[in-house]
Amino acid sequence: MVVRAAVAGASGYAGGELLRLLLTHPGVEIGALTGNSNAGQRLGALQPHLLPLADRILQETTPEVLAGHEIVFLALPHGQSAAVAEQLGPEVLVVDMGADFRLKDAADWERFYGSAHAGTWPYGLPELPGGRAALEGSKRIAVPGCYPTAVSLALFPAYAAGLAEQEAVIVAASGTSGAGKSPKTHLLGSEVMGSVSPYGVGGGHRHTPEMIQNLSAAAGEPVSVSFTPTLVPMSRGILATCSAKARPGVTAESVRAAYEKAFADEPFVHLLPEGQWPATASVHGSNAVQVQVAYDAAAGRIIAISAIDNLTKGTAGGALQSMNIALGLDETTGLSTIGVAP
Amino acid sequence: MVVRAAVAGASGYAGGELLRLLLTHPGVEIGALTGNSNAGQRLGALQPHLLPLADRILQETTPEVLAGHEIVFLALPHGQSAAVAEQLGPEVLVVDMGADFRLKDAADWERFYGSAHAGTWPYGLPELPGGRAALEGSKRIAVPGCYPTAVSLALFPAYAAGLAEQEAVIVAASGTSGAGKSPKTHLLGSEVMGSVSPYGVGGGHRHTPEMIQNLSAAAGEPVSVSFTPTLVPMSRGILATCSAKARPGVTAESVRAAYEKAFADEPFVHLLPEGQWPATASVHGSNAVQVQVAYDAAAGRIIAISAIDNLTKGTAGGALQSMNIALGLDETTGLSTIGVAP
Amino acid sequence: MVVRAAVAGASGYAGGELLRLLLTHPGVEIGALTGNSNAGQRLGALQPHLLPLADRILQETTPEVLAGHEIVFLALPHGQSAAVAEQLGPEVLVVDMGADFRLKDAADWERFYGSAHAGTWPYGLPELPGGRAALEGSKRIAVPGCYPTAVSLALFPAYAAGLAEQEAVIVAASGTSGAGKSPKTHLLGSEVMGSVSPYGVGGGHRHTPEMIQNLSAAAGEPVSVSFTPTLVPMSRGILATCSAKARPGVTAESVRAAYEKAFADEPFVHLLPEGQWPATASVHGSNAVQVQVAYDAAAGRIIAISAIDNLTKGTAGGALQSMNIALGLDETTGLSTIGVAP
Amino acid sequence: MVVRAAVAGASGYAGGELLRLLLTHPGVEIGALTGNSNAGQRLGALQPHLLPLADRILQETTPEVLAGHEIVFLALPHGQSAAVAEQLGPEVLVVDMGADFRLKDAADWERFYGSAHAGTWPYGLPELPGGRAALEGSKRIAVPGCYPTAVSLALFPAYAAGLAEQEAVIVAASGTSGAGKSPKTHLLGSEVMGSVSPYGVGGGHRHTPEMIQNLSAAAGEPVSVSFTPTLVPMSRGILATCSAKARPGVTAESVRAAYEKAFADEPFVHLLPEGQWPATASVHGSNAVQVQVAYDAAAGRIIAISAIDNLTKGTAGGALQSMNIALGLDETTGLSTIGVAP
Repeated sequence: MVVRAAVAGASGYAGGELLRLLLTHPGVEIGALTGNSNAGQRLGALQPHLLPLADRILQETTPEVLAGHEIVFLALPHGQSAAVAEQLGPEVLVVDMGADFRLKDAADWERFYGSAHAGTWPYGLPELPGGRAALEGSKRIAVPGCYPTAVSLALFPAYAAGLAEQEAVIVAASGTSGAGKSPKTHLLGSEVMGSVSPYGVGGGHRHTPEMIQNLSAAAGEPVSVSFTPTLVPMSRGILATCSAKARPGVTAESVRAAYEKAFADEPFVHLLPEGQWPATASVHGSNAVQVQVAYDAAAGRIIAISAIDNLTKGTAGGALQSMNIALGLDETTGLSTIGVAP
Repeated sequence: MVVRAAVAGASGYAGGELLRLLLTHPGVEIGALTGNSNAGQRLGALQPHLLPLADRILQETTPEVLAGHEIVFLALPHGQSAAVAEQLGPEVLVVDMGADFRLKDAADWERFYGSAHAGTWPYGLPELPGGRAALEGSKRIAVPGCYPTAVSLALFPAYAAGLAEQEAVIVAASGTSGAGKSPKTHLLGSEVMGSVSPYGVGGGHRHTPEMIQNLSAAAGEPVSVSFTPTLVPMSRGILATCSAKARPGVTAESVRAAYEKAFADEPFVHLLPEGQWPATASVHGSNAVQVQVAYDAAAGRIIAISAIDNLTKGTAGGALQSMNIALGLDETTGLSTIGVAP
Repeated sequence: MVVRAAVAGASGYAGGELLRLLLTHPGVEIGALTGNSNAGQRLGALQPHLLPLADRILQETTPEVLAGHEIVFLALPHGQSAAVAEQLGPEVLVVDMGADFRLKDAADWERFYGSAHAGTWPYGLPELPGGRAALEGSKRIAVPGCYPTAVSLALFPAYAAGLAEQEAVIVAASGTSGAGKSPKTHLLGSEVMGSVSPYGVGGGHRHTPEMIQNLSAAAGEPVSVSFTPTLVPMSRGILATCSAKARPGVTAESVRAAYEKAFADEPFVHLLPEGQWPATASVHGSNAVQVQVAYDAAAGRIIAISAIDNLTKGTAGGALQSMNIALGLDETTGLSTIGVAP
Repeated sequence: MVVRAAVAGASGYAGGELLRLLLTHPGVEIGALTGNSNAGQRLGALQPHLLPLADRILQETTPEVLAGHEIVFLALPHGQSAAVAEQLGPEVLVVDMGADFRLKDAADWERFYGSAHAGTWPYGLPELPGGRAALEGSKRIAVPGCYPTAVSLALFPAYAAGLAEQEAVIVAASGTSGAGKSPKTHLLGSEVMGSVSPYGVGGGHRHTPEMIQNLSAAAGEPVSVSFTPTLVPMSRGILATCSAKARPGVTAESVRAAYEKAFADEPFVHLLPEGQWPATASVHGSNAVQVQVAYDAAAGRIIAISAIDNLTKGTAGGALQSMNIALGLDETTGLSTIGVAP
């Protein structure tokens, strides 16, 4: 059985990555492609790496264009998904790669996004406790943010096992594709090459409440998060360096054991052998997550570090992984754990 | 039918890329992996992006280890392939990704490589005139150099159609993986980031006679080549800017027509629409070749530009493409034209 | 004697580089800074690397603001300099870092820029034959383009000495700052990192007639130029690979001798020792030019390669060097031949 | 008065940066240059960006060669400085850019470096409380590590003002030049471009005890440090993201006030205006430090971020700044706060 999928927002980085992956997914046929400001253009001019789709023409994002597909992916700026989604019938699997339906707390949404909360959909991070059950058979999926994916996978085992105090400190480095394809001066190559800089410091980044939501759920009590994202000179990849004070009695062995247990059966999350640390190049273009954890006895902290490709596991690959579960397919269908390196 | 392949030199960049591609090739099973100085190590420590092979242990490159495989890939420093190859029976398909068997002229080999010529094997660039016929059923394949792949594909249509004078001028930009994984000061990240520099200027690069061989064959008469390679700050990719004086009567239309004809049925070479130019990012990790050509009437020159991934189409992907032909498989088996971008 | 200089266009890359250099120039005091769309902003927000000027506020580019300065630098988009310049008196030294006054041939200007030709000013490349004499005491200076600077310095000795045929083939690699600070999708970091791509192929680049003008003057007869610029993943730097067919009788020695003679007394152009090739990192932030030349006997071509910093010697440093000559100062005042590397 | 300085270790990155700065220092003449494995080579082949010194020949590091200089800079691998220093008379100003004399606690040294402690010299970070007094007139200077420079400057004001709990969490991103010029596989351009990776996680980095030493001194009581360094794809620059839990009663205003007071008279440390964050590109090649601080009320933490050039303020510029103080010169002599950007 092959189902047809439409992609709204096919000209951006998230949409392009989704198409790259869909091209090799055996269970999905690529249907309509839309992109408002670029409607009418050849995809080959906008996504020149997708040669098999080069002659496709982008259409407008309208109900008529999106009709007749079993799946609709939304790769739209935040705040736009709800309006499109409500025009799609309940029998259509809608996968939102934006932020609109990730948060459970409407007040959080309003504070960080400044608009009315559209609702909450099943959350597409299967590796979290209970994550798969929430997705099975679902017709709506909220794909997590890229930073929350990296951070939640690095830290939830420590919280789920009760090893860490409820104050997490996170510093993450992201490639520039996470900031999107809209031209802005601070994202010019001339500005980003040779430079590392932070942004959204002090709790201001919109992904913060999503991390708090995930880690608090794992801990069973509220976890505070100090999150500092930084922009680094590469196109793809997130390295999340996460730490929390260890609770009394924690040892290097108990930390390692908790992580080994959490990821023992995970197809995409690889806990590295002791002494080897994640590198974003190793997961470039792959849906894999590299994780390593250490216990710093002198500082009394657990340090967990993860590497993902922000566009693959962090966005489009994560979306397909959840889609596979929702459709009842093998979770790994069309997804790879092989990176493109060097 | 699935055949087993051994890879000699699995710890380097060429070997790693070959393994990346073999992992998804439906007709080949990965057998022994060897690497002399790294024998005994886990592949996960050397090629951390190849997660499915992380627990494989590298072996010594000995006849015993290589025995029992239908295919043996040699990803060895030049000059080492002949000794290994002669220990392999004539029924084994041997694919040499090094330089040893590329040149037909023993004097050329001796001048550029300073050792005795080992011989000449069928040349693995199927897109050249007569290229496929030479590979069908062959048990020995000499995989072309990365620069000759990019340059020959960019220029042979002009020479095959008799449009260009016999003096080609080529300037190519290469990512650093083309220089290999051996640690050298001038290849350190600190040295290459932020810098472009030429090397082997004035005819000294060892790929020059291989280009001359290919272009002269296409032209049916000797073609001289001025070749300047440059190192640019990226890991992968070659952009070859090639030009030659146009013969009398050449027009923009006749140039375009020659290239359209040359590549009309090629699965991997894409002549871009007029006005769009190749970019190495578009073929990152893919076996595709992007080509564009222009006629500069004021300067009286044909300018042909190609972009490849030096490790994929330029090495390991090209090797698999030729292997497919030799084995009688569909030429595109296990190979992709989809780039990983941005 | 210290003179006051105004800078029109202080928020862009050329203006920023000029200010960086003026800050250490002992003979010039920095006066008014203007930038139309950014007027009213702190310079510290736009050029955060210029800490000593962080609290300066940008003004509008008006005659009133520019009045009262002995020197006015124009770092404006092409086509805007003439209107500003005609409001400045003949006693003011006006240094145009744009293209408006570089070309002698009005038809060339109109063909490449599509507007009426504003005129021709003394050309700011002192190293060219007769270059210094044209600048001494001048009150108007047209600063050369970055590519013509690199290319003309690499090739004029061969033409001035009659060693080369009148057909030059040039492929240049440029960092992204040469494309300016205006946000455009194809200049995003995500697009340029990991990619090399050509543009303006086939004679279309606006710097082509400027190169033809300079090389033809050196040769004493018309020289044709095939020029292909490429964008490479770095912020600064140009490497120009230039070649031409050698005339009969040319030898490696005669080529070397011509270059040694041409640059013997030049303070900024360094002919490297034989065997060492230019690298853009070596001239990062410096006004130096690294040049090397070779004679490829097999191909019968002279290959000359230069490396400059496109913003320093290619724009703002070149402007100051010419300003120094015009003012009667030592030509090297406030300029360095020391690069910032690695 | 001009004094003569010898540089031991002139072929590496620290030595090269020191020479770059010394070339424009009005009070120091460059004397002997040494480099053991490279002795006998032209500096132009090793440091091609230092054109004015291109014809200098490296000598062996012997007492005879170093004799006759008022100042000797040691840019040697750790563990080698003591042997050289003890051959230099007490009247010679010896500036050690290595680690040997930084730590006060011999046990710390032995644990992290595995050899006998050579001693403790006055510490070259003038901005620390009491820092300048320790350096005035000194004949021995221990130049701080690059990470401790960035981290100590970011956090000491919070500790000196009693605002922060004694547990600091630090994640720093460094360019690759910090890892030196010795060729190693993991430092190849192919490996570092496109990748971010941590190292020395969990308290293992040798700069950790130095940070603890500085912050504990500022706090007047022991401060624990969780330090995670990461390697990012750029040549130069460190961004240190530092945080600590705020003590009761702390407000955004009290934090800001403490930092404004700490840096009010500092010539090189610039506390950015509120809302602007440091970027390493802004201090590229300069001795400036950009600092910003925020109070995250939700997480209850103070976040202080600094950007330095690891080779300038982090090594050679810091060395000259301390040398200036030791010699009684103006502290800023020969040092710049102007970055080379973009």
